[in-house]
Amino acid sequence: MVAKPIVIDCDPGADDAIALFLALAFPEHLNVLGITTVAGNVPLSLTQKNARALCELMSVDVPVYAGCPRPLLRPLLTAEDVHGKTGLDGIHLPEPQMPLQEQHAVDFLIETLLRSTHKITLATLGPLTNIAIALIKVPAICQHIQEIVMMGGALTQGNITPSAEFNLYVDPHAAHVVATAGVPLTIMSLDVTHQAIATPERLHGIRAINSPISAATLGLLNHYGAYEMQRHGFPGPPLHDPCVIAYLLQPALFTTSRAYVAIETTSELTMGRTVVDRNHVTNAPPHANIAETIDVEGFYQLLTRAIAKLSES
Amino acid sequence: MVAKPIVIDCDPGADDAIALFLALAFPEHLNVLGITTVAGNVPLSLTQKNARALCELMSVDVPVYAGCPRPLLRPLLTAEDVHGKTGLDGIHLPEPQMPLQEQHAVDFLIETLLRSTHKITLATLGPLTNIAIALIKVPAICQHIQEIVMMGGALTQGNITPSAEFNLYVDPHAAHVVATAGVPLTIMSLDVTHQAIATPERLHGIRAINSPISAATLGLLNHYGAYEMQRHGFPGPPLHDPCVIAYLLQPALFTTSRAYVAIETTSELTMGRTVVDRNHVTNAPPHANIAETIDVEGFYQLLTRAIAKLSES
Amino acid sequence: MVAKPIVIDCDPGADDAIALFLALAFPEHLNVLGITTVAGNVPLSLTQKNARALCELMSVDVPVYAGCPRPLLRPLLTAEDVHGKTGLDGIHLPEPQMPLQEQHAVDFLIETLLRSTHKITLATLGPLTNIAIALIKVPAICQHIQEIVMMGGALTQGNITPSAEFNLYVDPHAAHVVATAGVPLTIMSLDVTHQAIATPERLHGIRAINSPISAATLGLLNHYGAYEMQRHGFPGPPLHDPCVIAYLLQPALFTTSRAYVAIETTSELTMGRTVVDRNHVTNAPPHANIAETIDVEGFYQLLTRAIAKLSES
Amino acid sequence: MVAKPIVIDCDPGADDAIALFLALAFPEHLNVLGITTVAGNVPLSLTQKNARALCELMSVDVPVYAGCPRPLLRPLLTAEDVHGKTGLDGIHLPEPQMPLQEQHAVDFLIETLLRSTHKITLATLGPLTNIAIALIKVPAICQHIQEIVMMGGALTQGNITPSAEFNLYVDPHAAHVVATAGVPLTIMSLDVTHQAIATPERLHGIRAINSPISAATLGLLNHYGAYEMQRHGFPGPPLHDPCVIAYLLQPALFTTSRAYVAIETTSELTMGRTVVDRNHVTNAPPHANIAETIDVEGFYQLLTRAIAKLSES
Repeated sequence: MVAKPIVIDCDPGADDAIALFLALAFPEHLNVLGITTVAGNVPLSLTQKNARALCELMSVDVPVYAGCPRPLLRPLLTAEDVHGKTGLDGIHLPEPQMPLQEQHAVDFLIETLLRSTHKITLATLGPLTNIAIALIKVPAICQHIQEIVMMGGALTQGNITPSAEFNLYVDPHAAHVVATAGVPLTIMSLDVTHQAIATPERLHGIRAINSPISAATLGLLNHYGAYEMQRHGFPGPPLHDPCVIAYLLQPALFTTSRAYVAIETTSELTMGRTVVDRNHVTNAPPHANIAETIDVEGFYQLLTRAIAKLSES
Repeated sequence: MVAKPIVIDCDPGADDAIALFLALAFPEHLNVLGITTVAGNVPLSLTQKNARALCELMSVDVPVYAGCPRPLLRPLLTAEDVHGKTGLDGIHLPEPQMPLQEQHAVDFLIETLLRSTHKITLATLGPLTNIAIALIKVPAICQHIQEIVMMGGALTQGNITPSAEFNLYVDPHAAHVVATAGVPLTIMSLDVTHQAIATPERLHGIRAINSPISAATLGLLNHYGAYEMQRHGFPGPPLHDPCVIAYLLQPALFTTSRAYVAIETTSELTMGRTVVDRNHVTNAPPHANIAETIDVEGFYQLLTRAIAKLSES
Repeated sequence: MVAKPIVIDCDPGADDAIALFLALAFPEHLNVLGITTVAGNVPLSLTQKNARALCELMSVDVPVYAGCPRPLLRPLLTAEDVHGKTGLDGIHLPEPQMPLQEQHAVDFLIETLLRSTHKITLATLGPLTNIAIALIKVPAICQHIQEIVMMGGALTQGNITPSAEFNLYVDPHAAHVVATAGVPLTIMSLDVTHQAIATPERLHGIRAINSPISAATLGLLNHYGAYEMQRHGFPGPPLHDPCVIAYLLQPALFTTSRAYVAIETTSELTMGRTVVDRNHVTNAPPHANIAETIDVEGFYQLLTRAIAKLSES
Repeated sequence: MVAKPIVIDCDPGADDAIALFLALAFPEHLNVLGITTVAGNVPLSLTQKNARALCELMSVDVPVYAGCPRPLLRPLLTAEDVHGKTGLDGIHLPEPQMPLQEQHAVDFLIETLLRSTHKITLATLGPLTNIAIALIKVPAICQHIQEIVMMGGALTQGNITPSAEFNLYVDPHAAHVVATAGVPLTIMSLDVTHQAIATPERLHGIRAINSPISAATLGLLNHYGAYEMQRHGFPGPPLHDPCVIAYLLQPALFTTSRAYVAIETTSELTMGRTVVDRNHVTNAPPHANIAETIDVEGFYQLLTRAIAKLSES
């Protein structure tokens, strides 16, 4: 079996970091061609640095690219209240030695897609700015995308407004471009990621590992969890972004449905809403996979295995 | 104990009819001062006629008023696919002899509120056009409204669009006027009314009664249920509007929460969405009661009792 | 020749006052059935009082009705910076003795229209809230309206925002209801009223009259003019509202064109914009008269004659 | 005097073609570093080919780049009714031999701006997609832009909708990005370009030249003029795009004012409207130059000189 070629577009961010751990633990399954970074949880200058620092922590040599420092139309909104001032509060990583790639993330995406003989999967963990700009610049990349698996959206309640989830609220116009591009799309909304709560019990296995990677995971969850527990009354932090990678590694962990999806870009009140026609009340043909449920125990077993595997090397 | 004075604003409509049965069965609890009608499920000419015909079926003498034949801003949308061409398909009622009141529903509402020495509860079962026009015409009526208990809205999925429930979609601007009027508000959304499914078992008691009222109830549910069961895959029709009356009779049948609510009036995509800040992600103070759950068996016991009681007289 | 039956809906307001002088000077031409008042330049409590005080100043006995104290959807915006705290700053009128009619302005409009054997013209000088509520409450009044001649809108630049004129910005939703009601419509936009500047020369005749009415006219213009001259650099105040009455008295003073008109109600940026398809770039059939030019000298001669006539009695 | 370095972003298009003639006739004044093309009047595959064919007609060696084939968010709208199926109907140019540059127009813009030691002026003749994508991708290019001089917008009436001019309507979101980028901006709206009508008299000098370039100019105007004359009743076609180049060559041909400008991107009714605060009714600081009037005779003398000069070589 050949490893699935993917590019990870992210804005680390605590849960992005854990998603990267998960993605890079299984090179036999996921061939991470590059990590592209975007402004989101924290500004671009931090997300690209954090991505490099995390690669060094894992001792992996994946090229990291910086992308767009701002959303398409709206002023950048960041989430330091959740992720801390550095984006990775709760751990301390040394300044990365690994260089940032000179190429712009958007161009890396376009070039990689156009040159590849296989279709490539895009795993998106942050605002969709880079992907949207690539799609507008060179729409022909569509034919080269296997699937976009995105963390984003809320079928019921949002986390940044009552209507919207953070990633889609930060750049709803980019999400609209992606949702209307005609590319296969799988959506990990808050409704599924909020099922993946990192309770103390579920972290037991990771706590037993005792390596720099497990320590980083716990350090990040500790900081990030405090916020989420206080804000939403969760018994631990939800692991949003790792759901995307878990889906790529083990799709059977999730149930999904097919539905038509549109993104609100007109009204301030509902800006960034993922409008999902789950009950087929419109005639719009379903065009996206909506993750509905996650096998939470299976997910944490996978994550524990990933961190154990990374800790061996 | 004094009966609670209420006005019922409605657009009968199958489930409106059953709500009227429920409301008028217990005059010791609810003092129905009048029934105001509005365009919604079917045009005004039918809703006012249907309300009168239903009063005659129940042999009650409640004045019926015709209100606004159109929403504030949008063209009227009706739901003959659900309620049939007459609005009460599935039964046949004779042409009502009871006259329509000459006064406009809006003026009856205003006058009744201003003249009453007690605060009055408004039970709204259709689009909120009449209530909104009354509030714009004479905002001072606010101080005389005990509470508005409305059937409308969807916290998760809508039934006319993915975002919106029918009543609020038909006149979202009226709903906005009501939601911002500073009046106590309780919302029965689809999320609670979809719990109140009229399965064959739950209708057992009503079926046993064998009176014109029980026959009408079953006839309406039969027609209306066929649509809902086919459309949404429910095991029977949901009784939307009767939830409002059940709440007035027996609030303990429901659990509720408090939240800030706003109505989408800007974007076509999400038009009429009830934006409910259930997780308190905004700083807007909660100002509405959101019905969350219903004791379904208790609800059907109440309804059965009402139909039995109406059938006695 | 029979006098044309009209109702004047207004929010006095300095230029409303002068419009009322013009309207009531020629009972042989205009039969003013009533004056309905609305919130606009100042709150309703002042506009209805001012209307009565102006009737008493003119010694005319026209019934005055109070209408809606708030716009359909938006919070009331008033213009005390233009018209002063009383709405009639620059003059002092005694507290009116004439009673306010008990009937609501909306109901007076509906009843008068429905009962009249002739079609009636509505002259609107303020936000269109009363007219819109009447049209929503009883759409059948349409058939009884001869024409609505409104002061409102801006074809080029607005005066309250770059896009919108004050009357339409205060209640754009009401303007939308009026513009889509299927009633004959003539629009006096800023583009024509800004041609009707009250320069000192043009006021010469009025200044020569020396009566309470001419003194009031000059007092109002003095206060109101100071604002407009400073704000817009005009050589005197524009007489917006009197253009409506002048059109009813002497339509030949104006050139008009026919065009399709729609009112912006969605976007905050352009809220209340009068979108006029003057170049016929859409396929929408023209349905409104747009006043284009005014014979300014003829207009001031008419106004001077009116004030002279009122001063005689 | 050093020639002003510029990049021309265009979508030829008849008036784009004439703008290119004007721009490339005076290399001592304008140093055209490159021509970037965008989808607009016709699709990108034609605009880039037309740009190359026009360079060959002029025997100039300016690199031509293809940019974005679609607007940021809206489906592409083209104007074959105006410019013909080829975009240059009315003339026949041979298939260009000159190669299209491999680099994407957006990257050429970014690289050229970042590498230049002088600030560079952008002359934009079509939808602003390329410029917006460059600004989103690398916002730092702002500091390297001398000025953007754009053909676009309508202060009074639009030409594609009552509110909007074609270029801004095709990609209003791109225009918003440009208008909010903090870059010096000069706007040639329809209100000034409609002053620059190519009447037969004004073309007299060009007609006298009798060269391939003058023939092309007249051929294009002939085809394009027929449409404009029939559609708008003009006595000849307006030369929209050449106004931008004329302004760069001879700014004294124009009077301008300073105003705040915002672009409507929310409402379908007014989509793409250039909201210009000419009367300073908002507190937003003026940040754009608005061309108000053009010395039409001077403009046609300049154009005649340009075509004569190009015809010499």
